[in-house]
Amino acid sequence: MDYKLLGTDLTPSYLSSLSKRDRELLCSELRDKIISTVSKNGGHLASNLGCVELTVSLLSVFDYTKDKIVFDVGHQSYSYKLLTGRFNEFDTLRQEGGISGFPRISESPYDAFDTGHSSTSISAALGMARARDLKGTDEYVVALIGDGAMTGGLAFEALNDLGHSNTKMIVILNDNEMSIDRNVGGMSRYLQRLRMTSGYLSAKKNTESFLNKIPVLGKGIIAMIMAIKRFFRFITYGKSPSIFENLGLRYYGPIDGHNTEELIKAFDAVKDLNVPVLMHVITKKGKGYRFAEENPSDYHGVSPFDVEVGVKKSNKLSYTGAFSGTLLDISAKNKKVVGICAAMAIGTGMEPFSYKYPSRFFDCGIAEEHCVTMAAGMARSGMIPIVAIYSSFLQRAYDEILHDVCYMNNHVIFAVDRAGFVGNDGHTHNGMHDISYLNSMPGMTILSPRDYSDLKMCFEYAVNKVKGPVAVRYPRGASPYEEDGPLYSEIKDINKPHVVSDEGNDYVLITTGLYCKVCEKTRDILSTNGYKGKVVCLTVLKPLNTSDIIDVIGDSRFVFTGEEGILAGGFGESLKLELTRGGYNGRVDNFAVENQMIRAGTVDQQLKASGLDAETIASKIRKVLTEELK
Amino acid sequence: MDYKLLGTDLTPSYLSSLSKRDRELLCSELRDKIISTVSKNGGHLASNLGCVELTVSLLSVFDYTKDKIVFDVGHQSYSYKLLTGRFNEFDTLRQEGGISGFPRISESPYDAFDTGHSSTSISAALGMARARDLKGTDEYVVALIGDGAMTGGLAFEALNDLGHSNTKMIVILNDNEMSIDRNVGGMSRYLQRLRMTSGYLSAKKNTESFLNKIPVLGKGIIAMIMAIKRFFRFITYGKSPSIFENLGLRYYGPIDGHNTEELIKAFDAVKDLNVPVLMHVITKKGKGYRFAEENPSDYHGVSPFDVEVGVKKSNKLSYTGAFSGTLLDISAKNKKVVGICAAMAIGTGMEPFSYKYPSRFFDCGIAEEHCVTMAAGMARSGMIPIVAIYSSFLQRAYDEILHDVCYMNNHVIFAVDRAGFVGNDGHTHNGMHDISYLNSMPGMTILSPRDYSDLKMCFEYAVNKVKGPVAVRYPRGASPYEEDGPLYSEIKDINKPHVVSDEGNDYVLITTGLYCKVCEKTRDILSTNGYKGKVVCLTVLKPLNTSDIIDVIGDSRFVFTGEEGILAGGFGESLKLELTRGGYNGRVDNFAVENQMIRAGTVDQQLKASGLDAETIASKIRKVLTEELK
Repeated sequence: MDYKLLGTDLTPSYLSSLSKRDRELLCSELRDKIISTVSKNGGHLASNLGCVELTVSLLSVFDYTKDKIVFDVGHQSYSYKLLTGRFNEFDTLRQEGGISGFPRISESPYDAFDTGHSSTSISAALGMARARDLKGTDEYVVALIGDGAMTGGLAFEALNDLGHSNTKMIVILNDNEMSIDRNVGGMSRYLQRLRMTSGYLSAKKNTESFLNKIPVLGKGIIAMIMAIKRFFRFITYGKSPSIFENLGLRYYGPIDGHNTEELIKAFDAVKDLNVPVLMHVITKKGKGYRFAEENPSDYHGVSPFDVEVGVKKSNKLSYTGAFSGTLLDISAKNKKVVGICAAMAIGTGMEPFSYKYPSRFFDCGIAEEHCVTMAAGMARSGMIPIVAIYSSFLQRAYDEILHDVCYMNNHVIFAVDRAGFVGNDGHTHNGMHDISYLNSMPGMTILSPRDYSDLKMCFEYAVNKVKGPVAVRYPRGASPYEEDGPLYSEIKDINKPHVVSDEGNDYVLITTGLYCKVCEKTRDILSTNGYKGKVVCLTVLKPLNTSDIIDVIGDSRFVFTGEEGILAGGFGESLKLELTRGGYNGRVDNFAVENQMIRAGTVDQQLKASGLDAETIASKIRKVLTEELK
Repeated sequence: MDYKLLGTDLTPSYLSSLSKRDRELLCSELRDKIISTVSKNGGHLASNLGCVELTVSLLSVFDYTKDKIVFDVGHQSYSYKLLTGRFNEFDTLRQEGGISGFPRISESPYDAFDTGHSSTSISAALGMARARDLKGTDEYVVALIGDGAMTGGLAFEALNDLGHSNTKMIVILNDNEMSIDRNVGGMSRYLQRLRMTSGYLSAKKNTESFLNKIPVLGKGIIAMIMAIKRFFRFITYGKSPSIFENLGLRYYGPIDGHNTEELIKAFDAVKDLNVPVLMHVITKKGKGYRFAEENPSDYHGVSPFDVEVGVKKSNKLSYTGAFSGTLLDISAKNKKVVGICAAMAIGTGMEPFSYKYPSRFFDCGIAEEHCVTMAAGMARSGMIPIVAIYSSFLQRAYDEILHDVCYMNNHVIFAVDRAGFVGNDGHTHNGMHDISYLNSMPGMTILSPRDYSDLKMCFEYAVNKVKGPVAVRYPRGASPYEEDGPLYSEIKDINKPHVVSDEGNDYVLITTGLYCKVCEKTRDILSTNGYKGKVVCLTVLKPLNTSDIIDVIGDSRFVFTGEEGILAGGFGESLKLELTRGGYNGRVDNFAVENQMIRAGTVDQQLKASGLDAETIASKIRKVLTEELK
């Protein structure tokens, strides 16, 4: 598709003066660009397609060079990026050195706030609005948040403060009835009622069926009638009480989020109100791409795909899939096992479990903290909860893990998916911190499986052998070990350090999980350089079996550790300290992530950017050995 | 006061059969016991006095040996403890080895869940209710939560899930219009309207003024009339929509929380409903003790006091007070500085600032996460936010500090009060983790002042010299350094290690903050044993000035570190690793908190229980030196 508008100099004043026809053209160009780019690079599709008209309308009313527009999560910021000077680089979306899949202040002066994790936008925007009032400037501040993100406690804390503060600010609730999976919770049901009572859905349906049945010339008239109807609804329902009104915000809506005229009218109507406003906008996830409209969950985050055919589900097994199967096996044997996730049944692999054991499955919404404390309550009453949350999102529940799980030694099992580098989502989504903070939690057992059979063994151990809190961390993607064995199912004792290979005594390279593969490559490089050492892989990272590890190290004077996680407080540092305390007095060097801001790229690129690829490590080890042995 | 009922065998069936008169007697005995114990031991007074009738009524309807009653925070659990078999030990409240000031599963089988931090009760109770339904048992599950704790996002996440789940469970909203300070936020104002529209306040006021004016014999009749009125209100308002109804809970209330008849009637009415119920109960903080009723904030948490005279405000300066003054000084000089706290203006010392600069002060409610992300938003817009939150509560905002502050290198200053041992509140309130997790945050500067002038220097440095995130951690209580100088104001460069004393080269003991005092005692003990070393105190814990520290260590082969914080990832471990990386090859031993479950006691007792008192450390150092030097 050749673009007439996209790629030209879209200044705020130009955007504000677009005709309806040009706005529609711009929307269709944006959709085309988003679909074609995501189909090549992968990315977040359904939520971005749902926000096209909303973004164009926003930028028709607000001045992106001056006003602050804060996107929650950022799954819906592609149109904004394309409209604010990033069209030419957009082909680099989510690639190393390219345009991020999320708002980034380092990428553009028009990105107000970095996002990635959920439910932060209202807080951040309120901070900006308060700063504006103190400084006496006059920019508008807008937070754009989905109904899924609204289930996060942080968003509620912010609404509570905003409603009380009376600060001039607009919250746009982008209601698409979804978080990443279909949305859950009382708030979701409440929004559904708001939509129903306002007659929104039926009005919309009628309009659409009308429009489909009448000749082209009639459309204008019908649209006008509908516009008047909408205007009345706006007046009427804008004044009805709601949860938001009760909290102190002015509520407007619901508004059709795909009608730019209506949206612009609404923004114009509320933008100068000196109160906090919540504007309830209804959008359709995946809008404009049939496959995505029909299966928005499948089109939330996608890998590259053929636009004509749609996304093909991969049959390749992954760590997540291995967890999925393991959970089914374990649950069949033990009725105490329950599954808990935070709006991520599909992403975490809990979906098959949720179908097979619906009464034992709990999707608590985007609410990681509540997931953890709820699990603690279940554990106190004799259940064995398995809480599946991605590593970087589990950070949200740091205090709940410590205070509600560990202090009581509750038997809660954390399935920590996406541990280590995750690739194209970039630094906010990399699972870097879990080992470090879980290491500091009393009574916590940390398991880090290398391959699928190891993963299964870990969960069986976690359910049957451990009495207190356990975390099993595993990476995104597929295991390379399934192709070239041997698998860890052959190993009897999970607590023993596994000597992966023993070529000699020049060094010992100790690692864990999938990173073992990098260490094996490192060994091969070193081997060709004439250095012969051991590669050792640990599954239990806490408590460390120090004496057995020291036995395995034997006479070697040089220990190296490798991991996909931060250095500070991580696996390597902990092991180094334990080895010293255990009496080992050789040299120990740690390879881990020192720069936590590793941006998007492939996992291999991220490893390289962190100096954690096999070549870099091999050369560092070589340097140490050369210096020390000379 | 001699007790007729308290101290007898208060079985559930006995409690459920109490006459109104005996219930009133029991309430007055509970109040007497609570006031007399807290006046001796210190503790949480106002909230416990507010909950006496509520607790007696709860235990008149529910069976504490079987049903699950989850207290939020736990500030209000004293009556429960006294009624469930802990009367005889209650004099040991908050003392070492004694009754905890909070619910503890290790203390009684009738404590359902450990608490201390806010807003966990609904999540935990929902977990228990779901476990009950899966097991097919029939216990009731009740969460008791204050309106302050209801502003925490975790509570909202739980309400959202509960409303949707349709699980049989009762949430009692104990509405006393306070968190620790007067409550803030839209929810608070909403509850106020709920109270007003229901005519609750006026009815109550009328009743009370009636009761005060009529002769004793008339009371029964008036009470009966009021009871009928209340019953009608109950029917009427129990069916009116509310935020809670909108979220899917059945709402009942408001109910007079000091009227046991009404409460029991209400519990009986709702307990067998097969839906989640929110019962809105109005109580008065400090009820029954005049001083506390008049100034509930001053009687939230108190030190020992004279019952006749009331709490005397201490004039003794504390680290908190030093922060308070510093904040005023800094704010006068720099208009960009704003102050943010989480329902703790008094506790954190922000109150004077809030009076002097009301427009620059933001109390965000018990909402640590929102405080931090809101601060990040303000920083993005050019303000310099100082966020004052106690160390153990700041854990709630781990992800927000990392994701919203550090990743963007936002200049947000954390005033981390109550770092280290806090004494009688026990392990949930000890500030043990801050150094460990802040150490892992990219770009974070960590400052740890020793005395008041050092504290002031730290904040000036944080505001004027640091560009990104900074945390200043300081302990509860008073500094001993003010009495016997020299103060750190004499030192020019905050980044230099301060050699506190230099007696010789046998060892170097490196420490930070108030813990320096313990290290100086340790030095004195060692000195009398003939070991002469250096004591070095650091103010900047991150980034560590490793080369200067190595210079100070000089030829010494034995370095010891001491801190009031956890070992894993803490100051000592970080320093040890840095020294090794920096080329120091002597021995480094860390003294830090290894058991994170150090219970209530004085700070000195907690230090001793952790093996961190001067005597223990001195003997450990002596052992190392003796062994290594022989």
